[in-house]
Amino acid sequence: MGKANYIDDFHQWEQGFVFCHLVKVRFSETDMFGHLNNTVPFIYFEEARIEFFKSIGFMQDWLRSDNETIPVVADLQCDFLQQIFYNEQLKVYVKAHTVGNSSVDLHYMAKREDGSIGFIGRGTMVQISKKTGKGVPWTVEMKNLLLHQEKVGI
Amino acid sequence: MGKANYIDDFHQWEQGFVFCHLVKVRFSETDMFGHLNNTVPFIYFEEARIEFFKSIGFMQDWLRSDNETIPVVADLQCDFLQQIFYNEQLKVYVKAHTVGNSSVDLHYMAKREDGSIGFIGRGTMVQISKKTGKGVPWTVEMKNLLLHQEKVGI
Amino acid sequence: MGKANYIDDFHQWEQGFVFCHLVKVRFSETDMFGHLNNTVPFIYFEEARIEFFKSIGFMQDWLRSDNETIPVVADLQCDFLQQIFYNEQLKVYVKAHTVGNSSVDLHYMAKREDGSIGFIGRGTMVQISKKTGKGVPWTVEMKNLLLHQEKVGI
Amino acid sequence: MGKANYIDDFHQWEQGFVFCHLVKVRFSETDMFGHLNNTVPFIYFEEARIEFFKSIGFMQDWLRSDNETIPVVADLQCDFLQQIFYNEQLKVYVKAHTVGNSSVDLHYMAKREDGSIGFIGRGTMVQISKKTGKGVPWTVEMKNLLLHQEKVGI
Repeated sequence: MGKANYIDDFHQWEQGFVFCHLVKVRFSETDMFGHLNNTVPFIYFEEARIEFFKSIGFMQDWLRSDNETIPVVADLQCDFLQQIFYNEQLKVYVKAHTVGNSSVDLHYMAKREDGSIGFIGRGTMVQISKKTGKGVPWTVEMKNLLLHQEKVGI
Repeated sequence: MGKANYIDDFHQWEQGFVFCHLVKVRFSETDMFGHLNNTVPFIYFEEARIEFFKSIGFMQDWLRSDNETIPVVADLQCDFLQQIFYNEQLKVYVKAHTVGNSSVDLHYMAKREDGSIGFIGRGTMVQISKKTGKGVPWTVEMKNLLLHQEKVGI
Repeated sequence: MGKANYIDDFHQWEQGFVFCHLVKVRFSETDMFGHLNNTVPFIYFEEARIEFFKSIGFMQDWLRSDNETIPVVADLQCDFLQQIFYNEQLKVYVKAHTVGNSSVDLHYMAKREDGSIGFIGRGTMVQISKKTGKGVPWTVEMKNLLLHQEKVGI
Repeated sequence: MGKANYIDDFHQWEQGFVFCHLVKVRFSETDMFGHLNNTVPFIYFEEARIEFFKSIGFMQDWLRSDNETIPVVADLQCDFLQQIFYNEQLKVYVKAHTVGNSSVDLHYMAKREDGSIGFIGRGTMVQISKKTGKGVPWTVEMKNLLLHQEKVGI
């Protein structure tokens, strides 16, 4: 697992996750090679990320039609460590790795039922203005919430 | 094919299609049983239906943010006549079967490359007001366009 | 709701459901009209149907690679009664309406959190031979399991 | 665009693409924020990648049920440079950036109709044995085909 250049110390990285969201692999998410199709982990990342944002109160604002900011994805990546199969229950962990001015680098880790890691990933989200499309800085309170989330989720 | 109760005379029904949209089965649309997953034909129906609506100029209005109406799906059904596989190219035909006051009953037929029929279906669309959610009647011109489309598509 | 021709007495039909599977609407399942895309209920139907089949022990056999039968979808339909939105939690009910020689007509009902019905549907599944593609009759025990399922699920 | 650490000289990188596959954004691929959902570019990458592999004759072998190797995705990433909208036609370019013993690092670039770049990405594929799950080395001929593909596609 040395190839994931966004991880320095793997053990420490793994220990840093607190928030987690449960996902069960759907039949329609497999492909004719018999395993989870490679495009699906990004759906799980989005679902877990939004639950994470809900847990700290961000998503509620972003979804209000009168709100002037929305989050957009700047980049995404996934390292597939093992094949995943139909009906597996995955714990998809999310954490804020680093927080920028108007962005946050989120890291992801999906654990299988046997405790092994199925896939990991990361991606930067940016809070932008709906009107201008430009980044809107986090408040100090938001930065604190992103970095010091309490244990929530499953 | 006697079970499809929305078809009286199959040969006549088949001959009534003019508009068609080409679709190629994606790898990610297969499942672990090795064939096209049963949820995907409805994606093809939507794609073909929208191309049909574009061909008669309806979709362009519905997509304008200042337009007060949008189309919604009232019901959908699909009869799966044959298994479909990865990489098949399908001709997805669409036609307006009957036109109501603010609704239209669209019929669908997907032909495989050998000319056999893979799946068929139908579904009612309703033009509704974004504000009230209630049906907005077609104009006479729209009714004519729905029923007398010229040969377009592939 | 008079149009759903697969329902005689709606109240009685609604009362006949026992098995139910919980689903939460994903962000990626919405579309630019702001609601659940019309293709997604069929994904929920599949997920709920497979959980139903697991609850009576059928799916486990069908998934074994040395098993000679698989279930295939013969037809599917959905009536959309209300718009569904991001983050809604739906109770997707499934029941066997009628059982044929090698087929079963499954009915579906999705309830929203306020108890109202979001969409309903039905579809026939057939147990076929992987080799011949032809229907393989249910055993008497299987027919009993299909029709007399106990309260399972959520 | 300096953040994409898999690109040295952007202009040279862009010029290196030859193979391209056309994709049209489906309505069902948008989300309630009104643009292409962030999970969809990976579907386009897969579709374009498989067309690339077909153009050099690899996919045909991998799909044969008696073939002992299949390709699997080791990692994937995408940088979203612009929002993409419904109905856009994208040219999705694919090229082999580097070829390993049994792996290939594929790069991707999606151009919009105005010639601007919507998103870019990369990912490593590995040819593995279905039985052992271990990498199976490319032949010399395969390495040549990966690196010297002729102009194909659209």
